[in-house]
Amino acid sequence: MPDFASRIEAVREAMRRRGIGLLYLPASSSLEYLTGIKRDIPNPTEDNRPGDWVAGMYLGLETGPVVVEPRMGSDRMEVQLRDKPWVTDLHVLGEPDDYTGALLRIAGQLRGGSGDVAVGERAWAKTVIDLQRAAPDAALINAAELIAPLRMIKDDEERAVMRRNARLTDEVYAAILPKIELGMSERDIAWLIDRAIAEHGGDFVSFHTGIRIGGGGQARAGSIHDHLTGRTLDRGTALAFDFGILKDGYCSDFGRTVFIGEPGEEHCRVYDLVIRAQAAAIEAMRDGEITAAQLDAVARDIISEAGYGPKFIHRLGHSIGKDVHEPPFLLTGDDTVLRTGMCFTIEPSVFMEDGSFVRVEDVVMVTPDGGESFNATSHELRVLDL
Amino acid sequence: MPDFASRIEAVREAMRRRGIGLLYLPASSSLEYLTGIKRDIPNPTEDNRPGDWVAGMYLGLETGPVVVEPRMGSDRMEVQLRDKPWVTDLHVLGEPDDYTGALLRIAGQLRGGSGDVAVGERAWAKTVIDLQRAAPDAALINAAELIAPLRMIKDDEERAVMRRNARLTDEVYAAILPKIELGMSERDIAWLIDRAIAEHGGDFVSFHTGIRIGGGGQARAGSIHDHLTGRTLDRGTALAFDFGILKDGYCSDFGRTVFIGEPGEEHCRVYDLVIRAQAAAIEAMRDGEITAAQLDAVARDIISEAGYGPKFIHRLGHSIGKDVHEPPFLLTGDDTVLRTGMCFTIEPSVFMEDGSFVRVEDVVMVTPDGGESFNATSHELRVLDL
Repeated sequence: MPDFASRIEAVREAMRRRGIGLLYLPASSSLEYLTGIKRDIPNPTEDNRPGDWVAGMYLGLETGPVVVEPRMGSDRMEVQLRDKPWVTDLHVLGEPDDYTGALLRIAGQLRGGSGDVAVGERAWAKTVIDLQRAAPDAALINAAELIAPLRMIKDDEERAVMRRNARLTDEVYAAILPKIELGMSERDIAWLIDRAIAEHGGDFVSFHTGIRIGGGGQARAGSIHDHLTGRTLDRGTALAFDFGILKDGYCSDFGRTVFIGEPGEEHCRVYDLVIRAQAAAIEAMRDGEITAAQLDAVARDIISEAGYGPKFIHRLGHSIGKDVHEPPFLLTGDDTVLRTGMCFTIEPSVFMEDGSFVRVEDVVMVTPDGGESFNATSHELRVLDL
Repeated sequence: MPDFASRIEAVREAMRRRGIGLLYLPASSSLEYLTGIKRDIPNPTEDNRPGDWVAGMYLGLETGPVVVEPRMGSDRMEVQLRDKPWVTDLHVLGEPDDYTGALLRIAGQLRGGSGDVAVGERAWAKTVIDLQRAAPDAALINAAELIAPLRMIKDDEERAVMRRNARLTDEVYAAILPKIELGMSERDIAWLIDRAIAEHGGDFVSFHTGIRIGGGGQARAGSIHDHLTGRTLDRGTALAFDFGILKDGYCSDFGRTVFIGEPGEEHCRVYDLVIRAQAAAIEAMRDGEITAAQLDAVARDIISEAGYGPKFIHRLGHSIGKDVHEPPFLLTGDDTVLRTGMCFTIEPSVFMEDGSFVRVEDVVMVTPDGGESFNATSHELRVLDL
């Protein structure tokens, strides 16, 4: 089990340095990182429990963390807290209750009258408004400034979970490829994948599965940024996969493009270009020797020199861990120096004139000797002879 | 198409009354309600696009709305805005860009130097911190106070969509019931439902499908609040369904409990009790004659008089529309007077000693003559003879 007490102390140390007297986090990946309390998977539309905007964790410099939970669901929180002695108190909200009053009291007690207030980056505006009332003299600080630096470097236990998740993703890919048939729509293929993720023990997808069928003369309705359309699989198309799993609190994110029938000369050339760009980037992922922006440039320069620069339309990748996209990001302007234990997707792509989206994506960790890929699926050009 | 220009004017009128000079809404159900700009379905884990916390809609009293969108995805926004002349401007963020600077400039221009700032209830804390910098003298107001009163009463067009969605949900239920087999797990049954929702044209589930198998001697691991477990279907159990669809921007939410083999005497009595409590509540849903809390009491009193009060562990229901749970809520403390066009779930339940969860749930609209149920699935006790 991770050493949550040490993580909490590391955050308190950062709070002291910054003059912060109170940290509030809603149920989230950062709370899970800090305490082991599981985040919720958001519903597709908003749900509301009585008092939900007051729920979460309140941490003072000397006291707490106190967890606040609405009555509805508090039985689950009690079970979770049984093996978490580093959480000092659980406050269950009534139904009805004076929710804002509870927030003002708990936040006031833990802050102890001085210091700024750090708030989870995605805490609700409704909560922030009440927190400002609880500490009218305090500046509000984005809590990600305290927690993101800790989360960037994955420890041995986190690396092991992420390696295992990447291999499980490889297995899902190997399991669904033989089930692909002509005439399937992007949605049908996503369905195969999502089901296979559940069958392989994934807790959930880490993001909505994306399938892009391109080329072959048929137009794809919608934007390249649409994850799924009704476009169906024909001979002569390129089929691009983009999916990941969430298991034991960590994400994978994986991409490959396969060709349905023998690809043409330009497709072969572009595919080779993309895997060369990826290999060069992975090679360059050495501890202390390169920044996030520079790594983006390593792959982008190769693609640009071949004339496809404007067709590589997104950043080279993003950090990944408890969330599918975490800082730092591999793009111009992010000057974070890469360090051993940082994990990134490396996903160069070319969006071709005929609508083919050629991308290869793996999760790769920075080491002193260059990137260690957590995935083991081959990068060789693959033709499905359907 | 809804009259979005009128909705925007109604919000501006509320802003004037309250001394609010700027409204900010992220992509959300409320933004969809106000402008027709589609919300995103959240990913299971957090994703991040460059500048995403600045994205959304900014509305001044005399100018705007201005929509801000990151480069990645802006092509989709351009398509959406083509038929929306009530959005006066689209500002696309660069990559990289001075994101906070863009927010300060746009928010400052639209606010025009005075007035408080209303912020969407679930806008990110990171955004709120920047908005406060853009208007240091302004009080921050929860924008739900302006928009929720408009959303509560569904107009004719909204009612038609919600009726259609409820009937589609009935059809999904009728389609999956014959596919239920002994030995299926809660997860297997949820999978059947989710697939059927897609096949019947649902855009998405409105919330994570919940299946609860209770009784029959086998224990169900986890809390009643867990949506799904690995518990499998035996003869002698009660099988409770809870699911809904999202289609064309509106939700359904539906519940039934069926028995696998003939139920015992207490199960029959409790089932009858629950449907009587529901019928009494629906009968009482008359325009102007009852509050949300009083309606809860109508059903709760019937269940309490029969001795099962402590086993009805949640509110009678919640409003539903663009989101699955919206205010007002049918529980003690919510004194909203019910009005024609308000739509609620009516979902009394009894959580029995043997673990059976007996619940019946429909979406029902307030009218001058009592509730109009949008669902048509029978309330009669149903036995699956598997």
